[in-house]
This record gives sequence, C-alpha cells and structure tokens, in this order.
Amino acid sequence: MQAVKNMVSSASGPQYLTGNKPGLDAFIDQFDVFLFDCDGVLWSGDHLFPRIPETIRMLREKKKQLVFVTNNSTKSRSDYKKKFDSMGIEAYEDEVFGSSYSAAIYISRIMKLQAPKNKVFVLGESGVEQELDSEKVPHCGGTDPQLRREMMPEDFKNVANGSLLDDDVAVVLTGLDYHPSYLKYALAMAYVRRGAKFLATNVDSTLPSAGSLFPGAGSTSAPLITATGQEPLALGKPSQAMMDAIEGKFQFDRKKACMIGDRLNTDIEFGIKGGLGGTLCVLTGVSKKEEFLAAGAEVVPSAYVDQLGDLLG
Amino acid sequence: MQAVKNMVSSASGPQYLTGNKPGLDAFIDQFDVFLFDCDGVLWSGDHLFPRIPETIRMLREKKKQLVFVTNNSTKSRSDYKKKFDSMGIEAYEDEVFGSSYSAAIYISRIMKLQAPKNKVFVLGESGVEQELDSEKVPHCGGTDPQLRREMMPEDFKNVANGSLLDDDVAVVLTGLDYHPSYLKYALAMAYVRRGAKFLATNVDSTLPSAGSLFPGAGSTSAPLITATGQEPLALGKPSQAMMDAIEGKFQFDRKKACMIGDRLNTDIEFGIKGGLGGTLCVLTGVSKKEEFLAAGAEVVPSAYVDQLGDLLG
Repeated sequence: MQAVKNMVSSASGPQYLTGNKPGLDAFIDQFDVFLFDCDGVLWSGDHLFPRIPETIRMLREKKKQLVFVTNNSTKSRSDYKKKFDSMGIEAYEDEVFGSSYSAAIYISRIMKLQAPKNKVFVLGESGVEQELDSEKVPHCGGTDPQLRREMMPEDFKNVANGSLLDDDVAVVLTGLDYHPSYLKYALAMAYVRRGAKFLATNVDSTLPSAGSLFPGAGSTSAPLITATGQEPLALGKPSQAMMDAIEGKFQFDRKKACMIGDRLNTDIEFGIKGGLGGTLCVLTGVSKKEEFLAAGAEVVPSAYVDQLGDLLG
Repeated sequence: MQAVKNMVSSASGPQYLTGNKPGLDAFIDQFDVFLFDCDGVLWSGDHLFPRIPETIRMLREKKKQLVFVTNNSTKSRSDYKKKFDSMGIEAYEDEVFGSSYSAAIYISRIMKLQAPKNKVFVLGESGVEQELDSEKVPHCGGTDPQLRREMMPEDFKNVANGSLLDDDVAVVLTGLDYHPSYLKYALAMAYVRRGAKFLATNVDSTLPSAGSLFPGAGSTSAPLITATGQEPLALGKPSQAMMDAIEGKFQFDRKKACMIGDRLNTDIEFGIKGGLGGTLCVLTGVSKKEEFLAAGAEVVPSAYVDQLGDLLG
C-alpha cells in the first residue's frame, strides 16, 4: 500500500475525542459536511449502536450536510432508506451514496456507451440492477434465475462459440454475489476475454456480519480476476472515482468535509486520499486503535472515538 | 517466477523433433519412464489428437513405464480409466496420478491426522471425494446437495456461532468446483479461520475446453484465498509434493524420466524443478513455441514436437 498520511494530525498523532467535550465541539465545528460509512459505524448488521439517531439529529441541528457512503452493493439507495427508517435514523434517499450507484454513474456519465453495445453483464444482486435501472443502463446476468443453473456439457461449447453470449455486452460489473454459479463466472470470463471493460462496485475481501467475517465482494469477484488475469476498476471506497462522483453530486469544499468510518484501508484512506479536511475513526468495526497508533502506521485518522455516539459528548 | 532452466538443453535451446527420426529415437532411448499430462497432450476435451493410441502402444512395446499425471481434480483414477477406454488408449488405473489422488495421499500419508479431528471439508467435485474415500479419509461438503442452497439470514448467525460447522474438520481441500455457492465459501472461510489447513488439488487459473478457456480450480478456489488472505498448499503440478508422491509410488530414477506436457508453467516447470532427465513440450495445448524460443525465456523444455503422434516418426 502506498503510504498516506493525514496532514492534519501527523505531527501529534490522532486526537482521542471520547469524553473530551471542548475537543469534540472544536472538531465538529471545523466541518460543513460529514461522510459516513454505515456498517461498523451506525450499525453492525441488524444491531444499532448506542445513541446513533440522537447523534445524527445533533449534526442535522448544526446544519451539517450528511452523506452516507457505503460499499455494500447488494442494496440500492431505496433499500438503504428503508433500513434507516427501520433503525429509527433520520436519513433521505438522496443522502445515500452506495458503490452500486457509484458504478452506475460511472458507466452512464463517464463511459457514456453508445447503444446498442452498451449492456452490462452483472455478477451481483438486485442493488446493482436497481441502480443501473435508475441510470437507464441496460443489463443482463445479475439475479436472472436461469444463470443459477448447473453448467452443462453443451454450455462449454455454447460459451466458446459465442451463442450463449449477448453481443451488446460492453461491461462486466461485479459486486457481492450471494448466488455464484460456474455458468455466470464462465460467461463473465468470456465477455472480459472478448474485450468487455471489467468494473467492480468494490473489492472488499470480507463482509462483517453476525460478529464474524464472511466473503465480501472482492472474494465473490475473485474467480473472474484469477481466470482473466485482469484487475477490475473498483468504484467503491477507497477508489477516488467514488469521491469524485460524490463531490460532483453534492458540490462541497473538501477541506470542510470529514470522513467517518471504521476501516483504515477503505474509509480513512478514502478520506485522506480525497484531500478531505479530516477523518474520524470509530472503534466499533474492523480496525483497532493499535493499528493507527503504532509507529510507522500508514493510514492515520485525524481523530478517533470509541463509538459514534460519543460525538454527543 | 523463479528462473528455471533445463540443463539438458540450455546451451543450444530446445530440440525440435518432429520429422527428425534419428533425433526422436535417441530422445526416446534416453528414458525409461514417461510422465504424461493428458488434456492438451492426448486429447482436448472429447477430441482425441491424431495417432495417440499408436504412440502409447509404441512406447509400451519399448517397455517404457507410463504415468498419466493430471491436474484435473474432478475425475478420479477410475473415471480416468473409463476415459482412456472410451478413447481407445491402452492405460491402467494404476498408471493414473491425478491431483485429487495426490491430495488424498498427502492428507492420509503425510499429515496423518488422528481421528476424530481428521475430516476434510471439500470444495470440489466427486473426483476429490472418491480419492479421499480410497485413502479412507472422512470428508464433508463436496457434492452434498444441501450446500448448494441459497445462503439464508440465519446461516450468517449459525456459521458465526459455529452451529453449522463440523468440529471434526481439520482440512479444507479445494479443487475445481462446478457448483460454487456462497454457503460453501462461507463455511470454508470459517473453517480456515478456525485453523483448518488450507490445501488445493491444484491452482490452475484456467481450464481449456471446447477450444476456449474457462475458470479453473485456481479460479473457483479464489474466493477462499481472497477472503482468508491465505494461499493454499497446492498438490498438483508444478508442486513438487506431487512429484515426490509419484516417485514414492513408482520408484524410478529421475534422470531416466521425461515429462511430456503442453503448459510451460505447470508441466514443463514440474519436470525441470523435479530434476527429471528431460522434458518434452507438445504444441497442441496452451503454450506456444514462441514462449520458450524467445530470448530470456524462463521455462525451456529439452525438446518439442508439433503433436505427440510425431513421436512415431
């Protein structure tokens, strides 16, 4: 990993803000915009961390712009809105920026593919499909139940001779896929070998759930990476393509923005590489404080708290 | 890749034997044992290459020991015997040495696990299971249809709390799996995180079929490699664990043995690293002659022919 240092804090190390009311107030006052990672920060799976709705309300009362930035590709923005509602957290669909949405925007607004060769073959769940739909990008694969079937001997011939392939596919987009199949991997491999652009919503190797770790999007995409020898362009954190897309949508001064997250190598690195004014690490998720307090740590946040609710003082 | 050079030929480059009858006879006479890769050498999928049965017969008439060494983990030795019969090639089950068999031997004779904690969780097909059975190694996973089902929300909890795990599992063994599922990957990940030894029958990234390339065992194992951050001990070519097991079974002088194959980075490297007297590359499979004739080529065979049948002169 390239060494990245947060200039705000590199002289004195990250500031510990839990229980430090003057420090908290000064920290929050520096910023107009807070970008939040969700899982590991607001909740873990279905478990809401303490005082999260109140913390969000406090920031809204201070007129902060809030953006919820998630690498979870299985949920669309509207799925996320429902999750926020069920957790009793005030949030709006427009404030949610997921890796599926980031990928859909990249395809529709940066790649600008011309019909008819503008279709996306999806290895992933409905969150990816919904966001492609929202940007009017045609797609196939994804949740199509026909592709979850067994690979048959004739499928090898029909993939090899192209008769099972859609000539309009120009992009293969991978996200977390709970329904992998050999047929889907074989089709995706054939498309990439024919020249389709290889994109990923994100490449997190693991997915935290139920207090443990499970295979993440980077793991369910790994067969395609190994089979083709190609790495995808990843559009989730810490990719700066996602930061550029967020800035394009919300129009803010990066120096007045702070990224809050639980993972040094995605969230905190994302904020530092994006040149944000600050980064805040919470200790309710993947990274431990020993990782950034160690001498020679490569990714160091500006500040940290035990849990997000500590921002209330 | 570590630079490996075949001392036999490094001075003058590999010898081209097609149509060179005196060269062919001298080459064949050097060796008592021929190790053959199968796919890409004898056949490609269901397509038999020209004059293969006659070539095998010629070598048997010269009293050569023949060993068929394959990384294909989906077939057992008895499956292979049936394939040889259907192709009209004289071969015996005892002459077949597959990566599943190599893995089963490693587990039973090298690891020597003590019951009850001696079970193998398989990510792979029945070839792996049959070879484990032949060595009386208990196993689970594999072709169990229960594990091809969808991952349900409660599965995350039951994998995390261990209630879906078998406490007797000490090894996770991956091979080519035509029936990947998120549940299987999640279980395999949990076993490795609990300390199970991670083995692979082989890690070939691709599988040649129908004149094209498909995801190989290394690709269907890739989610577990990415999710755990661990590399498996691979027991297929070019792993020398496989060469040691072959030598242990067949008892031959390596200097009087020749490896014949179509892939430089598996077959030919396997023979060179194993210190065999010679290696022969056939051009009916993956590697092209330009790769080993190029200046600075890292893996160079002793000799090459256009196709195996050319050994007949």
